[in-house]
Amino acid sequence: MTFNIYLSGEIHTDWREQIIDGAAGLDVAFHSPVTDHGASDDCGVTILGAEPNKYWHDHKGAMVNAIRTRKGLADADIVVVRFGEKYKQWNAAFDAGYAAALGKSLIILHGADHQHALKEVDAAALAVAETPSQVVEILTYILTGALPQAGSAEAAE
Amino acid sequence: MTFNIYLSGEIHTDWREQIIDGAAGLDVAFHSPVTDHGASDDCGVTILGAEPNKYWHDHKGAMVNAIRTRKGLADADIVVVRFGEKYKQWNAAFDAGYAAALGKSLIILHGADHQHALKEVDAAALAVAETPSQVVEILTYILTGALPQAGSAEAAE
Amino acid sequence: MTFNIYLSGEIHTDWREQIIDGAAGLDVAFHSPVTDHGASDDCGVTILGAEPNKYWHDHKGAMVNAIRTRKGLADADIVVVRFGEKYKQWNAAFDAGYAAALGKSLIILHGADHQHALKEVDAAALAVAETPSQVVEILTYILTGALPQAGSAEAAE
Amino acid sequence: MTFNIYLSGEIHTDWREQIIDGAAGLDVAFHSPVTDHGASDDCGVTILGAEPNKYWHDHKGAMVNAIRTRKGLADADIVVVRFGEKYKQWNAAFDAGYAAALGKSLIILHGADHQHALKEVDAAALAVAETPSQVVEILTYILTGALPQAGSAEAAE
Amino acid sequence: MTFNIYLSGEIHTDWREQIIDGAAGLDVAFHSPVTDHGASDDCGVTILGAEPNKYWHDHKGAMVNAIRTRKGLADADIVVVRFGEKYKQWNAAFDAGYAAALGKSLIILHGADHQHALKEVDAAALAVAETPSQVVEILTYILTGALPQAGSAEAAE
Amino acid sequence: MTFNIYLSGEIHTDWREQIIDGAAGLDVAFHSPVTDHGASDDCGVTILGAEPNKYWHDHKGAMVNAIRTRKGLADADIVVVRFGEKYKQWNAAFDAGYAAALGKSLIILHGADHQHALKEVDAAALAVAETPSQVVEILTYILTGALPQAGSAEAAE
Amino acid sequence: MTFNIYLSGEIHTDWREQIIDGAAGLDVAFHSPVTDHGASDDCGVTILGAEPNKYWHDHKGAMVNAIRTRKGLADADIVVVRFGEKYKQWNAAFDAGYAAALGKSLIILHGADHQHALKEVDAAALAVAETPSQVVEILTYILTGALPQAGSAEAAE
Amino acid sequence: MTFNIYLSGEIHTDWREQIIDGAAGLDVAFHSPVTDHGASDDCGVTILGAEPNKYWHDHKGAMVNAIRTRKGLADADIVVVRFGEKYKQWNAAFDAGYAAALGKSLIILHGADHQHALKEVDAAALAVAETPSQVVEILTYILTGALPQAGSAEAAE
Repeated sequence: MTFNIYLSGEIHTDWREQIIDGAAGLDVAFHSPVTDHGASDDCGVTILGAEPNKYWHDHKGAMVNAIRTRKGLADADIVVVRFGEKYKQWNAAFDAGYAAALGKSLIILHGADHQHALKEVDAAALAVAETPSQVVEILTYILTGALPQAGSAEAAE
Repeated sequence: MTFNIYLSGEIHTDWREQIIDGAAGLDVAFHSPVTDHGASDDCGVTILGAEPNKYWHDHKGAMVNAIRTRKGLADADIVVVRFGEKYKQWNAAFDAGYAAALGKSLIILHGADHQHALKEVDAAALAVAETPSQVVEILTYILTGALPQAGSAEAAE
Repeated sequence: MTFNIYLSGEIHTDWREQIIDGAAGLDVAFHSPVTDHGASDDCGVTILGAEPNKYWHDHKGAMVNAIRTRKGLADADIVVVRFGEKYKQWNAAFDAGYAAALGKSLIILHGADHQHALKEVDAAALAVAETPSQVVEILTYILTGALPQAGSAEAAE
Repeated sequence: MTFNIYLSGEIHTDWREQIIDGAAGLDVAFHSPVTDHGASDDCGVTILGAEPNKYWHDHKGAMVNAIRTRKGLADADIVVVRFGEKYKQWNAAFDAGYAAALGKSLIILHGADHQHALKEVDAAALAVAETPSQVVEILTYILTGALPQAGSAEAAE
Repeated sequence: MTFNIYLSGEIHTDWREQIIDGAAGLDVAFHSPVTDHGASDDCGVTILGAEPNKYWHDHKGAMVNAIRTRKGLADADIVVVRFGEKYKQWNAAFDAGYAAALGKSLIILHGADHQHALKEVDAAALAVAETPSQVVEILTYILTGALPQAGSAEAAE
Repeated sequence: MTFNIYLSGEIHTDWREQIIDGAAGLDVAFHSPVTDHGASDDCGVTILGAEPNKYWHDHKGAMVNAIRTRKGLADADIVVVRFGEKYKQWNAAFDAGYAAALGKSLIILHGADHQHALKEVDAAALAVAETPSQVVEILTYILTGALPQAGSAEAAE
Repeated sequence: MTFNIYLSGEIHTDWREQIIDGAAGLDVAFHSPVTDHGASDDCGVTILGAEPNKYWHDHKGAMVNAIRTRKGLADADIVVVRFGEKYKQWNAAFDAGYAAALGKSLIILHGADHQHALKEVDAAALAVAETPSQVVEILTYILTGALPQAGSAEAAE
Repeated sequence: MTFNIYLSGEIHTDWREQIIDGAAGLDVAFHSPVTDHGASDDCGVTILGAEPNKYWHDHKGAMVNAIRTRKGLADADIVVVRFGEKYKQWNAAFDAGYAAALGKSLIILHGADHQHALKEVDAAALAVAETPSQVVEILTYILTGALPQAGSAEAAE
């Protein structure tokens, strides 16, 4: 019973790598959007032709990226959505809502300062974590039943 | 064939009233979240008991509000989501994602400056408008087939 | 038990009116796309702003029209799709496929000369008719159990 | 996370082979209808018995082919529908509508001259391409994140 | 909370009338197939044109009748299927299976002699009755909470 | 936008009446199981014939009651499940699970002493209340946006 | 793209073996109910305890068999239902209705004499065959595109 | 055709091991909740941070466990729910209701003394067993068609 896990949201830190590395050995499969910011923005026009209007430039790229995102969300058992410190990150919240409507198990990952602004998103989640290592601990527990030893969480960070 | 329309998002301007007034006479029924900010924040603890921890204070309120939001989204034919100038508005993007996954017709309403940040949300929409009067014109056209006369859009604003 | 009926397809003859008039007195409610060709083509740019590129001009209009079409198809018990003598009419075939996937009861209306080209579409239908009066007779039978008297079909055309 | 891709539509050129060859090495699985025109037309009567009436001859074949088409569409993550230069191709538009209602990611492939006639079909798509090599580039990007190098698109055609 | 009830199956006795009369005053709405045997058999060819081959004659009629049956089953809260003493009645068992897959509440009505042959059908039902008056009593109880007085069941038959 | 509310669970106190009375004037429609304990236990055998084996006696009744319960749950926007002080009340927890899987908004009503035993049920709820008047206050807020005045909650009990 | 095929219905001839043998080499997986008549009738009471009442004896067995049948139908791409010469075979028609409501591709297999009685069942099918070898030919065509050579059908029977 | 089986409910006896051992050699895959009572109660706070309020302590744990439970139930073909002699076991009844609403095949396992209290839960099941060895016999029959030899059931216990 492999768990498919989609890692959505912030693309400027290495939180995905931390989770993937930390979960080594568990029966999980990770999927993500394309996290190369430039490629993600320009994929539409690079492949399907330039657009003079920035709106359609963005639109074409967003549509192409949606092919990957939809598959990742549709196949996921668990969707982890990370909100970083900067930017609007509306695509992250959109993915969270999309996943919630599909009945996916949501884990939201964000710092304490976003708590109030994310209260509706957090309310749809089964876990709200602050660090990638907590997500690893959840996955470890869910798949093996093992909880972290006392003190191990700090050590892992 | 009444169209049920859910008006999600920004609660600091009168855009809902503009749309509701403009659509007078059409076979539409509008629904919205509770737009009293204070009541919306405190409904959980006021009814179900105080929480010393701000996170659970927010959580209880967000859950109670979700009862209304889910019904509004589930019954809607069209979901209009407005992004204002300020704040994170992650609940608006969450509602847009939720509605998209349910297959609702989405109309996104925002200013030109949010275009790039909202590209994934816009990509899921059937219309992206800048003003409430454009939403009224869409509803009028969808329900009656009538398009605005030349110059009427500016006049209506 | 009102039957909701969506009348999709060809917009250049009065077949919709023939069916609606013929079904007077039955417990049916008819819905259709906007059948004003000009309005249907230009609704997007008229309301949401001009597009220099014809593709996006068309795209904006098609998206706005989809708000009405989706509602009409989603609420329908029966979807009647008419293929006329001229034009590609790919939107008609698209609606037929969309309705079939939703499990709607399909009635396809076309002349004998389109029989081979429409064989996959016809294969998804519960009735394939050649004239609007046959559709009226089907609706009359389905709702009242009454079949046309001998000779009445010709008389009705 | 293998992507299942159904290649629907035009059967008179080698576009399917171009895509399948171009995507060699990607984690994709392609499925298609039977593209032998004669077999496709006659499968019903050859197996299940001759029909003197051409309508039922066609009908029997269309029904048998639907067994394969439904499976291909139901299992697909991405449905590519190609419209060629000739014929009515209503089955292609039907498949596109069917796939859209199932929430599949649609890629439509057609020449510029069909743009207006296909606007409702294109409006349901996540990408509209003109050449098989663009479809290959989309698949490559979706699966690996890699975009074509400058000039490579022309080279690939 | 009106209960929609579809009365499927045997058409040679007045069991439908007994149930409808017995349920007078309850908040229920009954729907049925066309129960005129001749009309039901010939509706296809009468409206859509004669068929020399009996198979297609039957087929056309069955398809037209399916428009009514599907709507009746889809809208039903409760599906009552009656198996009479004679005939194969495969359409009744087909309707029962169709309703079961849709999650409808099934009431099966048949004499004791069919018990073994109907065991798979009965196993999908929430009630198996022998007389129309028992169905009336079930509906009365479900809607009002009232059970028949001692002795009343026999009196009612 | 009437809210349909199903009141499931404990049948030995007047909590349903308290909620229904308290919600007078709101646009809500309440539905409940048959709350006459004796009728609920015996409905199956009273209508469909006695059973010497107590298991089948119970089974027949539970199946007949399920006709009403399923409709009440399927049509509900909100499902309120009350756990009382006594008995196993497995049917209440079963209804809660059933409603949760259907995506209904759950309100769980129970005393503080059941908190640990109900933690999995509460975790699926949007609100956990201790008194019927809190449920009334939630409904009032959800439908009108009005929160109770300070001190009013105690007064209402 | 393995096709899962469920073989439902008549258990007194070797039609299942003919199809399974004939399809050797194709990418198909066959599933069937338990076809040992005695075991199928008695499985419930043998495992779960005797019942003095024949109705409950049958019921217990039908319920246990339903565990297998539901899985077979739910996982199937194609459901083949065979009606033999004898018996009521209501379970076969029930399975056909169940499969139809799930949107499975149906192939019905019966002799010409049952044509009128099965017209509603046949109307839900994509193919109506008379011999197991025709089913093999359909599967061969669907999976490989190959049609039988002239004369081969007779040879295969 | 592997059967996925989720073993829900009582965690104080070795019934899961008995079933898993007894089913050795069958094409089945078993899944269960975390059955370490302490870990299950404390997983939330151990990973995500302590809560002074016992309600939120429990809540956090219940939510994390729900990630595993939902996956187990969603992927299951058969859900076995065991009710033991002690405790409220509302989570077991909740899982049964959840599984029933998803259309899973339910097997309920309990002693004779719980018969009346579990009648609504049993009414949703396809089999009600008293011993783990009966569940093994059902699985053996469902997968192989083999019934236990006379006397073997007692021997197996």
